[in-house]
Amino acid sequence: MQHMKWWGWGDEATTFDHHDKPALGPFVIDKVGIDLDSGSSKVIAFDDLEIAPSQLSEGLRGALVEAVGEEWVMDSPTERVIHTYGKSLRDLVRIRRGDLGRLPDVVVYPADEDQTVAIMAAALAADAVLIPFGGGTNISGSLEAPRSEQRIVVSIDMARLDRVLEIDETSRTARIQAGALGPDLERQLNARGWTIGHFPDSFNHSTLGGWIATRSSGMQSDKYGDIADLTRAVRVVTPNGVLATRNVPSTSTGPSVREMILGSEGRLGIITEATVHVHRVPEERKILGYLFPDWSRSLRAMHDIAASDAAPSVTRVSDAGETQFSFATKKGGGLADKAQSIVLKKFLTRVKHFELDDMCLSFIGFEGSAEHVARQRKLVGAIVKAHGGLCVGSSPGELYDQKKFDTPYIRDFLLDRGGLADVSETSAPWSLLEPLYDGVTTAARKAFADLGVKGWIMCHLSHSYHSGACLYFTFAFKETPGEDGLAQYDTVKRAIQQGFIDHGATLSHHHAVGVEHSAWLAEDISPAGVTMLRALFEGIDPNHSLNPGKILPDA
Amino acid sequence: MQHMKWWGWGDEATTFDHHDKPALGPFVIDKVGIDLDSGSSKVIAFDDLEIAPSQLSEGLRGALVEAVGEEWVMDSPTERVIHTYGKSLRDLVRIRRGDLGRLPDVVVYPADEDQTVAIMAAALAADAVLIPFGGGTNISGSLEAPRSEQRIVVSIDMARLDRVLEIDETSRTARIQAGALGPDLERQLNARGWTIGHFPDSFNHSTLGGWIATRSSGMQSDKYGDIADLTRAVRVVTPNGVLATRNVPSTSTGPSVREMILGSEGRLGIITEATVHVHRVPEERKILGYLFPDWSRSLRAMHDIAASDAAPSVTRVSDAGETQFSFATKKGGGLADKAQSIVLKKFLTRVKHFELDDMCLSFIGFEGSAEHVARQRKLVGAIVKAHGGLCVGSSPGELYDQKKFDTPYIRDFLLDRGGLADVSETSAPWSLLEPLYDGVTTAARKAFADLGVKGWIMCHLSHSYHSGACLYFTFAFKETPGEDGLAQYDTVKRAIQQGFIDHGATLSHHHAVGVEHSAWLAEDISPAGVTMLRALFEGIDPNHSLNPGKILPDA
Repeated sequence: MQHMKWWGWGDEATTFDHHDKPALGPFVIDKVGIDLDSGSSKVIAFDDLEIAPSQLSEGLRGALVEAVGEEWVMDSPTERVIHTYGKSLRDLVRIRRGDLGRLPDVVVYPADEDQTVAIMAAALAADAVLIPFGGGTNISGSLEAPRSEQRIVVSIDMARLDRVLEIDETSRTARIQAGALGPDLERQLNARGWTIGHFPDSFNHSTLGGWIATRSSGMQSDKYGDIADLTRAVRVVTPNGVLATRNVPSTSTGPSVREMILGSEGRLGIITEATVHVHRVPEERKILGYLFPDWSRSLRAMHDIAASDAAPSVTRVSDAGETQFSFATKKGGGLADKAQSIVLKKFLTRVKHFELDDMCLSFIGFEGSAEHVARQRKLVGAIVKAHGGLCVGSSPGELYDQKKFDTPYIRDFLLDRGGLADVSETSAPWSLLEPLYDGVTTAARKAFADLGVKGWIMCHLSHSYHSGACLYFTFAFKETPGEDGLAQYDTVKRAIQQGFIDHGATLSHHHAVGVEHSAWLAEDISPAGVTMLRALFEGIDPNHSLNPGKILPDA
Repeated sequence: MQHMKWWGWGDEATTFDHHDKPALGPFVIDKVGIDLDSGSSKVIAFDDLEIAPSQLSEGLRGALVEAVGEEWVMDSPTERVIHTYGKSLRDLVRIRRGDLGRLPDVVVYPADEDQTVAIMAAALAADAVLIPFGGGTNISGSLEAPRSEQRIVVSIDMARLDRVLEIDETSRTARIQAGALGPDLERQLNARGWTIGHFPDSFNHSTLGGWIATRSSGMQSDKYGDIADLTRAVRVVTPNGVLATRNVPSTSTGPSVREMILGSEGRLGIITEATVHVHRVPEERKILGYLFPDWSRSLRAMHDIAASDAAPSVTRVSDAGETQFSFATKKGGGLADKAQSIVLKKFLTRVKHFELDDMCLSFIGFEGSAEHVARQRKLVGAIVKAHGGLCVGSSPGELYDQKKFDTPYIRDFLLDRGGLADVSETSAPWSLLEPLYDGVTTAARKAFADLGVKGWIMCHLSHSYHSGACLYFTFAFKETPGEDGLAQYDTVKRAIQQGFIDHGATLSHHHAVGVEHSAWLAEDISPAGVTMLRALFEGIDPNHSLNPGKILPDA
């Protein structure tokens, strides 16, 4: 089993490097006061970790071994540490300093649904806690046991359920096991000419089951739909047997139990399989770069594209700050590159009268037949132009497409240098996006000021819908030496989340609730909504055996 | 308050008339053996109804009067009879013969959400049963109290909550009260240049709240989405306060409570308001007629359209039987009309080599800018041609568009002549549509044969999705004199519903569960799914005060 770094994001072999990005160092010094050439790993040595002994009982061990076989019941320190947290900033800070919280006592790897049923039965019979684990990328605290948990904690890792079981080429659906990582399932689909079209930032390390359990979105969701749209049927091991919904395109059979599984974060059972939409790999795929004179006009353009007959696969635009950050992460080019950049700047300032500090970079993607793509480009081009923007061709888009999965590595790199960086994302109606943006950035800057830290917040619109869009904020600051960095982080994160709620937005568009966001849930879905969720969870799992404390704190 | 006929469908002033449709009489005689010129009203006189006295207590009456005022608490026989049933075939047969089941004891009309809260509190305090009533069009038995109900039954009619409260023109959403009938809300939206784009067959007599409570679909849902897609936020009076979800385009805040309200049929509370997508009235709107040589090829064409870059607003195709029925309901035309029909027939048989008995009539709709419509027509036209079909222009589509809301009137007309007619609809993946169709029609014909009745079943595909489609069956037969017509109907209806389940389909695509379909629910969503619904309902409403017995029978 290939896991991510126990102490950070991604593959062991991959780390972020700033030396080929000459503009980045000066940018980061200027914005958050961190010297990228300073610092070094601040990760505790694995051997120095204080790992509480496993509380696994012989009885439960026996039942688990019977369920999955000796070799798939693991309680080595490495396995237990890897399955302790997800990859939120809080998780990284804690694990780097050796704060392991409540480690799972055992990790089990079922090979199929029957073994998952046996694990569920064994855990419930032993009054143990069961926490599902996909790729471990969650950043909302959905994977950790409550710190005070007294019962045995079982982490159930779905990695062995990694196969595309069946493609129905006529219905354009595939039955896929829940533990399949993005690249696993995409490789199996691609081999037969299909794609799932779901590419979250975590794609390389997250699983189908995890996407469903957290209501994930991907970069091309404008075209293919969020995971909630493209999941047609689920199989879930619950305390009351296997939930199996039918692969039907739409149904009116009461409140949808399929939809209740979407976003359930392990509180209703363990997802073992789903039937999802698949698409033919498109004839043509293009991501074009556009520049807008300012944020307001870029938002209006995204709105008008959503209201038009055009249907792009990606609509993304960065605010001025994120645009500057993007340019700062550009690899140092040759002389021709620099010359081209000078010409573009002159054109933008002198001909288009752009203020370069306000300029916003956008990527819009198109997929389908060559004719369809051409027509979409034309429709979008006219709207961009009407809002003062212009197309800058395909090279920025290609660059973005290549490096889109690498961003999380930067967080570890900054942590080594005393920089705390994280993301918060939300969605809101089109009419509220500007006040939301202003409110959230103001709240974050006030939090930075209150803390006396040098901080930075930037944003992009990442998904467009009929009635609104997702705003995706990234923030960073340099922790004050001698202060508790996590407490400082909480001040900023709280200000941003409260900003979402205060401005009519939701507490998360696609990162789920976990424990990070549960404090705001009643404000988002109203107290009566919380009561409905509690009724459902209590009815299915009265002893709180299934991933307790997530979404709702245990009452 | 304007209600439908207490004994049948629609406006008092409207009835079906066959005299202007010369081909219909011979068709019906041939297919189900009913003489349209025979028969007359078989409805019991209102004064002959035996109406059990209201059990409304003085205490509850007082509380309801306090909530809504004297004039909006009604217990006249007319009000009680009107609110007893929906409009299923079973409802019509029962009410026509004076079988009133368990009448509501009182009907209350709240003016707003606060009054709805007061009614909920009063009903719960009095241990009464509360059944929401929109337009009363439901055909799944969602509106009736259990026959053996001993508690006071309160019907809460939402008719006074009929306003479009706000249109957010930027976000393209509208806040609309749940009791607004289709024409009410559409008139208010149209006045400002907007449309909801939701047009179920029941449109003239059904409400927004009813659509949401039953997961309705409309004729243009291929473009605008089912009600589940276009409902962005809900306000619902529950026993635990007002559920108010936010108007956001997408969210990952746990299992969606908004989605739990969709299809809840009054079991979780009373819907008072929703925020829904609205669209600009399109520049151009066109419904074109197409003819296909047979059902198989027409289904393959619909599949290919769904898999193409085209995005029509309507995709509908009738099987050969329904095509023949459509032609039989045509108004008798002049000489030119007949001549044209002869020329078309010759062209179809001699040039296109159609077998006229196998021919399938299709309607495909296009909406948007003139350029968009033209391009869609071209894309669709090429696919139709590839499957041996041809376009027959806009007049059949316009005719269909005009008469689309009139079909339910035929059912009353047939009932007067001993004909039992009803509909059952479902959805399934594209790959299963043909075996589903064959299995269901075979099962229905076997049921007709077992009963020894002359029966007829026909079908159309009514909605297309990425992965499948809705098949909508209409069936009719002449009841055997001296036999219990409803028992005969049950035999046929059961065969069809079981056919859905046996062939991988769902028990209803857009008519909800009610009591008609609940027997198959565990087969559709699995026993574990039923357990989840029960957990939710029991948690919110442990005493089964809210529309008891719907979706799930009371345990």
